[in-house]
Amino acid sequence: MHRFFVNSDSIHNDHIVLSGRNAEHFRVLRLRRGETVVACDGEGTDYICTAGELTGREAVLKIQEKRASQGEPTVICTVYAAFPKGDKAETIVRKSVELGAAAIVFFPSERCVSRPDGAAALKKCDRWRSISEEAAKQSGRGIIPVVDVLGSFELAVKKAAEAELPLFLYEEEASTSIKKPLFERGGSVKTVSIMSGSEGGFELFEAEKARNAGMISVSVGKRILRCETAPLAALSAVMLCTDNF
Amino acid sequence: MHRFFVNSDSIHNDHIVLSGRNAEHFRVLRLRRGETVVACDGEGTDYICTAGELTGREAVLKIQEKRASQGEPTVICTVYAAFPKGDKAETIVRKSVELGAAAIVFFPSERCVSRPDGAAALKKCDRWRSISEEAAKQSGRGIIPVVDVLGSFELAVKKAAEAELPLFLYEEEASTSIKKPLFERGGSVKTVSIMSGSEGGFELFEAEKARNAGMISVSVGKRILRCETAPLAALSAVMLCTDNF
Repeated sequence: MHRFFVNSDSIHNDHIVLSGRNAEHFRVLRLRRGETVVACDGEGTDYICTAGELTGREAVLKIQEKRASQGEPTVICTVYAAFPKGDKAETIVRKSVELGAAAIVFFPSERCVSRPDGAAALKKCDRWRSISEEAAKQSGRGIIPVVDVLGSFELAVKKAAEAELPLFLYEEEASTSIKKPLFERGGSVKTVSIMSGSEGGFELFEAEKARNAGMISVSVGKRILRCETAPLAALSAVMLCTDNF
Repeated sequence: MHRFFVNSDSIHNDHIVLSGRNAEHFRVLRLRRGETVVACDGEGTDYICTAGELTGREAVLKIQEKRASQGEPTVICTVYAAFPKGDKAETIVRKSVELGAAAIVFFPSERCVSRPDGAAALKKCDRWRSISEEAAKQSGRGIIPVVDVLGSFELAVKKAAEAELPLFLYEEEASTSIKKPLFERGGSVKTVSIMSGSEGGFELFEAEKARNAGMISVSVGKRILRCETAPLAALSAVMLCTDNF
């Protein structure tokens, strides 16, 4: 079923009005009167609707049923990823949204080659936000996961450490597998953060800062994972162990 | 450390001879005499070597130490993926190798849009095999995972069902999460298969065939995962639960 994210303003008693980009999308999809579509308020509620006609720049959907979005996991998991090179950030956003992340936050770290600043960061962030929306529609999410950029590693650690289960993916971590904290506490935690490095991974002093802030340094195996693979492997592990698979 | 996969013929008592593509790669990397590199026999053994000089079309590596490849998981997990569209098969190969799959096998299913046959399949398979080698080098694997193509869904089910834990990823599966068999048996199984669909998923009759052959139909969550994401999420879950993370 086609899915639209709509503002609460456009949700009325028995109908929803699609305008702007949503109306344009409605047109492009060549939706026919009577087809079932889903409108989601982006806050976890889905409205199962029947498509009406496209009139001018608006389309009206008739509400048939209101229900909680099925695609929302019970855990709030934020992915903190150091800026990767090229278009890997797009992969991280797209796949993290599919796999159920609540937010994706990029930050600079010591070994980052790419460090978009100011206007460049804003422009990229805009692009990442549209990818998040696109992936949220496609995967049936009940929210559009937030994409943000933080200015420093320290700030990212500070924010990430606020989660109940703050996981720091460290390639030099030899003693603690991500399995340990997840098997011990996955069943009860409500908020998780996954922090992962750029192409070169993290410096030792960064791992120490993360540990000092209360993060748990963990391994995702002895293979060298690419920087866009590691957070997705960890996110899959989190969803599995919190009963969201 | 740079990594080469070598034939057993080229491994001598105290040295290894790189030739052909390996020698070419040695040249491209501009490796200097004395640098440490790893030569792997592709059967789980690594040779830690010191680089010698490139002479003509060969380079000699001096063996310093022999040890089991650290990157090999203890579980033998094969990914069976229905032919996806475009270059998604490449993503599946690359990421499956990174995450520890022993082999990646493609097959046609009812909803496949792309169904390479004969010469086209062979050509694609060649490309996928080089990607497997490249990813095995990069991720530090002890083998080059096999990439193969099977001619029918039935054949794929037959082969996949031979694993101790044969998992069939079915988007309509509402009662069994992949967590159940993995938490119950992940600690003891030695062979696992993951079978996943193309863009449109599987038909009901395909799921029934898989179940009849002894496969366990499982879900990887309520979100709609893309066909290249689902096997990687499942593979991460397998590696986690078999103590390979």
